[in-house]
Amino acid sequence: MTLDPGAGANRAPARPNKNFHHIGSFEPELGGYLEEVTLAYETWGELDDAGENAVLVAHALTGDSHCSGGPSEAYKRGGWWDAMVGPGRSVNTDEYFVVCSNVLGGCSGSTGPASVAHETGYPYGMRFPVITIRDIVRTQKRLLDDLGVRKIEVVLGGSIGGQQALEWAVEYPDFVEKSVVIAANGALGPLGLGMSEIGRRAIMADPFWRGGDYYGEEKGPETGLAIARMAGMLTYQSAPGQWERFGREPASRPALYEEFGGRFEIESYLHYQGQDLAGRFDANSYLYLTRAMDIYDVGFGYASQEEAYERVDAEMLFVGISSDWLFPATEVRASAEKAKGAGAEAYYEEMESLNGHDAFLKDWDELRAAVEPFLDK
Amino acid sequence: MTLDPGAGANRAPARPNKNFHHIGSFEPELGGYLEEVTLAYETWGELDDAGENAVLVAHALTGDSHCSGGPSEAYKRGGWWDAMVGPGRSVNTDEYFVVCSNVLGGCSGSTGPASVAHETGYPYGMRFPVITIRDIVRTQKRLLDDLGVRKIEVVLGGSIGGQQALEWAVEYPDFVEKSVVIAANGALGPLGLGMSEIGRRAIMADPFWRGGDYYGEEKGPETGLAIARMAGMLTYQSAPGQWERFGREPASRPALYEEFGGRFEIESYLHYQGQDLAGRFDANSYLYLTRAMDIYDVGFGYASQEEAYERVDAEMLFVGISSDWLFPATEVRASAEKAKGAGAEAYYEEMESLNGHDAFLKDWDELRAAVEPFLDK
Repeated sequence: MTLDPGAGANRAPARPNKNFHHIGSFEPELGGYLEEVTLAYETWGELDDAGENAVLVAHALTGDSHCSGGPSEAYKRGGWWDAMVGPGRSVNTDEYFVVCSNVLGGCSGSTGPASVAHETGYPYGMRFPVITIRDIVRTQKRLLDDLGVRKIEVVLGGSIGGQQALEWAVEYPDFVEKSVVIAANGALGPLGLGMSEIGRRAIMADPFWRGGDYYGEEKGPETGLAIARMAGMLTYQSAPGQWERFGREPASRPALYEEFGGRFEIESYLHYQGQDLAGRFDANSYLYLTRAMDIYDVGFGYASQEEAYERVDAEMLFVGISSDWLFPATEVRASAEKAKGAGAEAYYEEMESLNGHDAFLKDWDELRAAVEPFLDK
Repeated sequence: MTLDPGAGANRAPARPNKNFHHIGSFEPELGGYLEEVTLAYETWGELDDAGENAVLVAHALTGDSHCSGGPSEAYKRGGWWDAMVGPGRSVNTDEYFVVCSNVLGGCSGSTGPASVAHETGYPYGMRFPVITIRDIVRTQKRLLDDLGVRKIEVVLGGSIGGQQALEWAVEYPDFVEKSVVIAANGALGPLGLGMSEIGRRAIMADPFWRGGDYYGEEKGPETGLAIARMAGMLTYQSAPGQWERFGREPASRPALYEEFGGRFEIESYLHYQGQDLAGRFDANSYLYLTRAMDIYDVGFGYASQEEAYERVDAEMLFVGISSDWLFPATEVRASAEKAKGAGAEAYYEEMESLNGHDAFLKDWDELRAAVEPFLDK
């Protein structure tokens, strides 16, 4: 396991802009206790004197705090939202103080299952408490408070990052001016729940998972995590997009697994995607974060989803993607309408794309067209 | 492993109508050699003197030869197409001689990877040759020849059974009067290929799979097969159908796996479906049959798909299902149009259903409405 400082071993290339902030102890809403929580984060731009020009960018499932920046040794592909976040970009770092933090439960520097528990001196593993999107948001709030932020101008993110953007607007109505919820909604549907569970089962079935206590062992559940990633990748794309990109072409890259009756390009693609994630992500974090995504319901703790939306003071933009089947556009739109029905100033935009759920990490022109008018308002 | 006679051990309840026919040696089209092939089959109705009133029913991936009959000890749910096949039904056993045979490569009595190889005295395991839909059809032809069938009035099936119905029309144009291809087309798309591969990877990652040589061992790759089934089941349904059936309801049945942050009904459903298949199906057969499904291309061995369709003399009916995403209705329709364009008398009907791919095993009224006019023509 290659993990960032703050979460265990450190064999990764230097990440000079990454900071580690201790927010102290934390009580997750569903129970348990974390003695000492660290959040890894990066910032771009300057916070103004009033502390009111902050933008919070929330990363997707396997993302990290590095949303902006060109390719480097540590980040070969650059920041995951570099096309959106930077000087003069949609999220203008000349104007805003941009914060992006690795989530609680993650494995890129923030406290998660791979972190050493104070109480025992060993990594948490599956003794890590179940966490929720609200827990992630609450820990982010502590970080922002400590950074001197008094108001979030915009919080935005896609997928599980979109769930966070939504929860921010509900949990801290006085703190958020605008919330941009991309390819996410008030509660994931059963198809998404099922796909998540297939991935978790593959990880937990891997004998090297060892009940979650694989840290320090030579081999961990990389095979299971790779299968989970394959299932995930399929849900992030669309069938028409896959026809265009892969069709039924034979595999062009060397086999990663023993041959069995040939290989199609889509299989090979999935194999390599699986291998890639298994080399950079912690399987237990995958379990905890997909579970947080699944159990998120904007109405949790309120009488109804409507009651949750009634709390919102921020202007909200929901962005659906036409070919997304993890968070179908119709379901994203339905959340926008529910928010609006509850009195929130909520808008809906739809990106036309064949790239499925992943379009918010690819189709920059369409994404800019969907969010810029709202950001510039 | 509980397997039928002809394929190994026999601990299953008696299946009085099941027959086992030795068709001799067989050479699969992609290579390899099978010294002695047995097909398990069942028949209903009487063959006329001319041998020309036969109907061949082709089963789906994990199905078997028992397409007709009420619930019994051996078949608690009865025949898998009992609503369609029987006296006075759409496929009228008072009129037709109906044959349904477990496919080559299967595990319900026909020769497959669990069968003992003559050469070695041990089960084939992964030494079983890669087989194709055409191989399945060619072995079925031998069975029908030996039964005295001189002409197939209708061949019909759904999913991988639909691929067989299509291949029959192409491979034996003089032998088939009508072919009904349900929820299948000329070649599976990349999303389906990817979902198949996730299942295969889960099986092959199971340490109890043992490279395919788990027969006779106390434990086989049941866990991997269960995960494969979970992925399969998701592709057989539709998102709107899952909302209606499962929504985000909590699980109502006892947990089969260790709890981790609660369970939704859809997860529990998948767990039980996985467990069920793992108790009745052979994991290696799952590997071989999904591979056969994946590599099927109606144009294989011809200059093009069009050239294959030009061979067809049978009247063809393609039936798509509106919410199917394994074989999307648009792709089923496209195959019908391609067949028609190549001169075949091909029709297309669409079943409106929320049940996804599985609708051909559930929505009897819609299925009858789609196929009966064609059968009665």
